[in-house]
Amino acid sequence: MLSPVMWNAGRVRILDQTRLPAAEVWLELEQVDALDEAIRALRVRGAPAIGVAAALGCALAAHRFAGDDAERLRAAVARAADQLAATRPTAVNLFWALERMRRRLASLVGQPAGAIRQALLAEAESIRQEDLAACQAIGAHGAALLPQDATVLTHCNAGALATAGHGTALGVIRSAVAAGKRVRVFADETRPLLQGARLTAWELMRDGLEVTLICDNMAGALLGRGGVSACVVGADRIARNGDAANKIGTYGLAVLARRHAVPFYVAAPFTTVDLSVADGAGIPIEERAPEEVTCPQGVPFAPAGVRVWNPAFDVTPAELITALVTERGVIHGPDLAAGLRRLARPGDRGFE
Amino acid sequence: MLSPVMWNAGRVRILDQTRLPAAEVWLELEQVDALDEAIRALRVRGAPAIGVAAALGCALAAHRFAGDDAERLRAAVARAADQLAATRPTAVNLFWALERMRRRLASLVGQPAGAIRQALLAEAESIRQEDLAACQAIGAHGAALLPQDATVLTHCNAGALATAGHGTALGVIRSAVAAGKRVRVFADETRPLLQGARLTAWELMRDGLEVTLICDNMAGALLGRGGVSACVVGADRIARNGDAANKIGTYGLAVLARRHAVPFYVAAPFTTVDLSVADGAGIPIEERAPEEVTCPQGVPFAPAGVRVWNPAFDVTPAELITALVTERGVIHGPDLAAGLRRLARPGDRGFE
Repeated sequence: MLSPVMWNAGRVRILDQTRLPAAEVWLELEQVDALDEAIRALRVRGAPAIGVAAALGCALAAHRFAGDDAERLRAAVARAADQLAATRPTAVNLFWALERMRRRLASLVGQPAGAIRQALLAEAESIRQEDLAACQAIGAHGAALLPQDATVLTHCNAGALATAGHGTALGVIRSAVAAGKRVRVFADETRPLLQGARLTAWELMRDGLEVTLICDNMAGALLGRGGVSACVVGADRIARNGDAANKIGTYGLAVLARRHAVPFYVAAPFTTVDLSVADGAGIPIEERAPEEVTCPQGVPFAPAGVRVWNPAFDVTPAELITALVTERGVIHGPDLAAGLRRLARPGDRGFE
Repeated sequence: MLSPVMWNAGRVRILDQTRLPAAEVWLELEQVDALDEAIRALRVRGAPAIGVAAALGCALAAHRFAGDDAERLRAAVARAADQLAATRPTAVNLFWALERMRRRLASLVGQPAGAIRQALLAEAESIRQEDLAACQAIGAHGAALLPQDATVLTHCNAGALATAGHGTALGVIRSAVAAGKRVRVFADETRPLLQGARLTAWELMRDGLEVTLICDNMAGALLGRGGVSACVVGADRIARNGDAANKIGTYGLAVLARRHAVPFYVAAPFTTVDLSVADGAGIPIEERAPEEVTCPQGVPFAPAGVRVWNPAFDVTPAELITALVTERGVIHGPDLAAGLRRLARPGDRGFE
């Protein structure tokens, strides 16, 4: 089981995804600052994986704190949580995980430093294990939506690399294959950072799965020639009405899928749901550096000094989503809002 | 006036567009084989420019033929035309230009070698000058369609670099600016070969025009936020019913433009029209090497050996095209077929 982020003997161990597919480099992060950098630089990325990383970052802050002053230890952890909350704005799993760690921290007032360290690590480990279990459940629910012989188009990487393991969109594919279905995958390369080409193709080939790479702008021609059973993508934040923010280009793919009457599934755990946001307009969209567009992998592709617009995410309106595939079950459209209300639980972000 | 292909003292002079924007390298091609390679490798590209290049290639074959045997000279030119016809399948301007050169050649039976050389060069020069004039007329017709303060989204490069000069889609923008309109351009980078990032951004910045680069998959978010006045693109072949083949990704852009009620204009000279083809299904779509997707600019981005699908063009159905902007006037939808019939003339490909 490929898992891109974990605790390892007092350090946070991550697979540096900026180095894939050329090299499989594992980093052992000893400081919150290093984890902060790793999240900003997308060494660890994918909404659920960022949540797990941030939770482990709080455990790391506790672990690194020298001495037995429990109050100062708690303050150090709170500072780490604040710092990690500023790394990336769109994926809500980050804020959900940090909020859960803060609640656990608050419950530990009066405990000695050692107990706090242990409890925070246990909480982060729970978040990680729950994410893994959620992906397995998402996979099982989603696999049932695919035909026996399926062709699936996916965007970006909503795979093992984006989660604690197994993946959300790619979890659906893995579970379908495990259930004896044949699944051919088409992967959008996903500019600017090429998570489809670098990560999705890599992890599917690693598992011996059938994957064909296309440029993002070929999806229309692919859907037009027919034979695609479904689009399956992940999400970075799902609003109360079912609008879903995901990697830039997801919206365009959803529009094309609708035109060609191809089901469009968003696979995500409830940690990606933000009931405090009414609709997609309330989701902050990260804009990133122009160099991601002009100099992929450090190679200049565009004239020096060209103006660039580089939003990292877009919002797919609920009306274009055939179903949300969650660990608690499949929420079929068109009324995603009702389905989200039905399956929401205490502990979900914005649950009232 | 930037012009990427011309006759220069017995050679075909082209700007090597594979080297842009890093270097402005002009090639002086002395052999048809070299021109053949330049077209295949996209050193010269863009449907109208390919037509001009092929016509000049026939003149080059005549020029390079040693001796005074007129019959063997004509055979050498015919072989060159056959060779150049095999370079690329989709842009019909290539076949139109070669057919015109063949007709001119046939008209020269009985003429001495020197006269044939001169006549073929004159014919190729006419094709080049007519393309330039067509682009100017397209620009004037298209400029009238844009508001005084316009934001235009374009795909690939339908600019001076794709024609004898001025451009088709970018000709519309240049003419609008010359007419005193303000035009902000958003340019899709246009994977895999990045003609938008490398060529469109370069030639617009060179002219001091306002251009912002986006990845292809950002067009949906851009159209969604509002403010885009029109999409303007070129074409590689327009069928009798108005279906238009153009650079891969054009179709997806047209679908998004329709969703957001943004006018979608295809700007092209009549040399791009193929009345012999009933609709888009009859247009051959070139598929190119996987390395264009996996190794842009020679840098590997994807796992070695990954399967790739790399169609270079797609077809936008006539129903998604607001208007065709030609040198003979604007053909407004929805009945593009009627407009094409009305403006067609003898000499157009497939005219009956």
